[in-house]
Order: sequence, then structure tokens, then C-alpha cells
Amino acid sequence: MKIILVGASGTLGSAIAERLGRRHDLVRVGRHSGDLQADITQPDSIRALFAKVGRFDALVSATGALAFAPVTELTQADFQVGLSSKLMGQVNLVLLGQAQASDGASFTLTSGIVSEHPIHQGSAAAMVNAGLEGFARGAAIELPRGQRLNVVSPTVVEESLAHYGDFFLGFKAIPVAEAARAYERSVEGRETGKTYRVW
Amino acid sequence: MKIILVGASGTLGSAIAERLGRRHDLVRVGRHSGDLQADITQPDSIRALFAKVGRFDALVSATGALAFAPVTELTQADFQVGLSSKLMGQVNLVLLGQAQASDGASFTLTSGIVSEHPIHQGSAAAMVNAGLEGFARGAAIELPRGQRLNVVSPTVVEESLAHYGDFFLGFKAIPVAEAARAYERSVEGRETGKTYRVW
Repeated sequence: MKIILVGASGTLGSAIAERLGRRHDLVRVGRHSGDLQADITQPDSIRALFAKVGRFDALVSATGALAFAPVTELTQADFQVGLSSKLMGQVNLVLLGQAQASDGASFTLTSGIVSEHPIHQGSAAAMVNAGLEGFARGAAIELPRGQRLNVVSPTVVEESLAHYGDFFLGFKAIPVAEAARAYERSVEGRETGKTYRVW
Repeated sequence: MKIILVGASGTLGSAIAERLGRRHDLVRVGRHSGDLQADITQPDSIRALFAKVGRFDALVSATGALAFAPVTELTQADFQVGLSSKLMGQVNLVLLGQAQASDGASFTLTSGIVSEHPIHQGSAAAMVNAGLEGFARGAAIELPRGQRLNVVSPTVVEESLAHYGDFFLGFKAIPVAEAARAYERSVEGRETGKTYRVW
């Protein structure tokens, strides 16, 4: 399969690349790195990406920015970070990619445990992650030509504890390779509209 | 209690007003009707509303626009309708209202069954409704001074079947008065971060 991997250079993306790259041809996409570059907050940048890639069999997204702050301090701009990037950026990978995705192609997006298990300063993140999962449920039933759409919701990964560990005190961290497995399950399986919780 | 009811003139809002108005003082808010007017897509309009209302004990929102179209046809503008109105419009009622809400005040927002049970042309609606429920889970744990936040997720109501019935063929409709009861439960109860499903 020809698989587009958006966010390929990140902690999660690298682990997904390691796993899916064993059996498939990957097109690694990053904002400033990889085989091709795209800024998912810009629909025109996503359109340019698909114009370069041509037909593909799967798209996996492991990217998207979020702003964290207490609900008493979150600004409109803070919310806009997540709305433009992790939410609509990933939604637009599906909306703008479906036309040239092959019959039976799959899309796999990334939410996160905060969707269901809130953390301090995480109300914008909870909104964005839950919205992604809702979009997947809604869009999965009407994507054309047997195309599928799932979301992976990982908990914090061990490899990111140095950066995010303080937000997730008391949460069980998992090895990133375990999160990567859920993306493989989405790509290689036949389910659609699911959220794969990895925690 | 002094209760702000946003969307008071709608089918749902009228039923909520009938129920909550028996025991409480309502400030009915509409875009073009009611005691006070506000356009929830505009943060400045929400700020102006709160400046006029002063201290309040509960806010109930039964409003918010959504665009419906097949996922193969949904445009950026279609998504923006729901993001600006039903999602961020309602989120902003909480963000911008919390400072002058009384100790222990409650906020109750409206999502909908499409969050969990998708319908054709409903992928933007599913995203928005699920995002609202995620926001409530996330924000509820850090609202100040004992304030609470819940979401009511009604199915289609009998009184709206003439308008929306074709989207919900096979769904069981409920009397709008039954949906209104869930708002009373949110306002009068002590729970927070919940989604009350009424279907």
C-alpha cells in the first residue's frame, strides 16, 4: 500500500513509520521535514500535498497542535490553535483527500485520552479530541467507495514523559510502539468509525 | 434563581422556559427576540449580554446552528457554521460568563444524539456535538467557585419532526417536554461534567 503519514517525524509518527514501513511504501509528511511538506492548518497546503501525492491507499495522521491553559484563562486564540490544527487540520485531510484516495482506502486520525479523561488545563484539548472522534463516527457512514475512517486515542507515551509528564501525573504511560500498533490495526483491518483507545 | 436562557424562543427553549419558569426568574435571550438579544457567534455580543445581565445563578443554552451535507460535499464554510455557532458560541457562554456567575452556578449546553448515533449528512454535526460534550468533561473539573457544567443531548423531538423528521427516519422521537426535564435536572442537581442523553 501507498500510505501517507502526516506528522512522520514526531515521537508517535516515528513509531508508526517504523511499524507500517515494514510492509508498505510510506510518503512521510512534515511541516518542515519528510518527503513532502504541508501545513495542515492551511487547506491550500493540504490540497497542494494531495496534488503531489496522487492516488493513495491509506492516510495516517499523527499530528496537530493544542493549547493548554486553565479554563479561567483560555482565550479565543488558545481555542483557535486546536480548532485550526488538530481538529480541522485533520478533518481536512479526510475532506480534501477522499476524492483521490483509492477504493477501500483508510484514514486514521489521532485524538487522545483527554477526550474522555480530563486533565487540568485540558478543556480545549478535550473539546478537540472528542470532536475528532465524533467526526469519525459521522463521516465513516458516508465516505465513498468503501473508504474507512478511524481515530486512535492514545494515553501519554513513555517517550514523551519528559515533555508532558506533569500533565499526566498518576496516568499509566505506554511505550509509543504500543500506540503505533493501533494505527496498524486501523489500516490493515476492516472496521470504520471506531475510536481505538490505547491506555 | 436567576437563570439566563439562551435560545428561549425555539422549540426546545420554549419548553425549557415553561419548566424552569415555574420556580425561577428567567432572562430570555434570543438573537432577535426575548428580554435581551445576543449573537453567540460574536464574543463581543456575548460580553455585552453578560454586562447587561449582571450576576446570575444558572445559564441554559438551547441554541446553535449547524450545516448538514454529505461528507463528499461539506465545505469549509459549512464546518464554520457549526464551529462558530453551536460549538464555540456555546463554549463562549461558559468562558465569558464564568467570572460573573455566582458561586455554585451551573451552565447547561445542548449537543444532540448525532454525537453518538450518526445520520446521513451529519458529520459536521457529529463533530460539533461530540466536541461540546468533551469540552464539558474537560472544563467541569476546573470551573471556579463550585460552578458546574453539563450538556443535554436530546434525540429529535416530536414537535420538530415536520422540519427534521427526514433526517431521523427510524429514530424514536420524544416530546420536547421530556427533553426539557433534563435541563431542570442539570440546573437543580449537583452533578457536573455530564452528558444527559434524552432518547
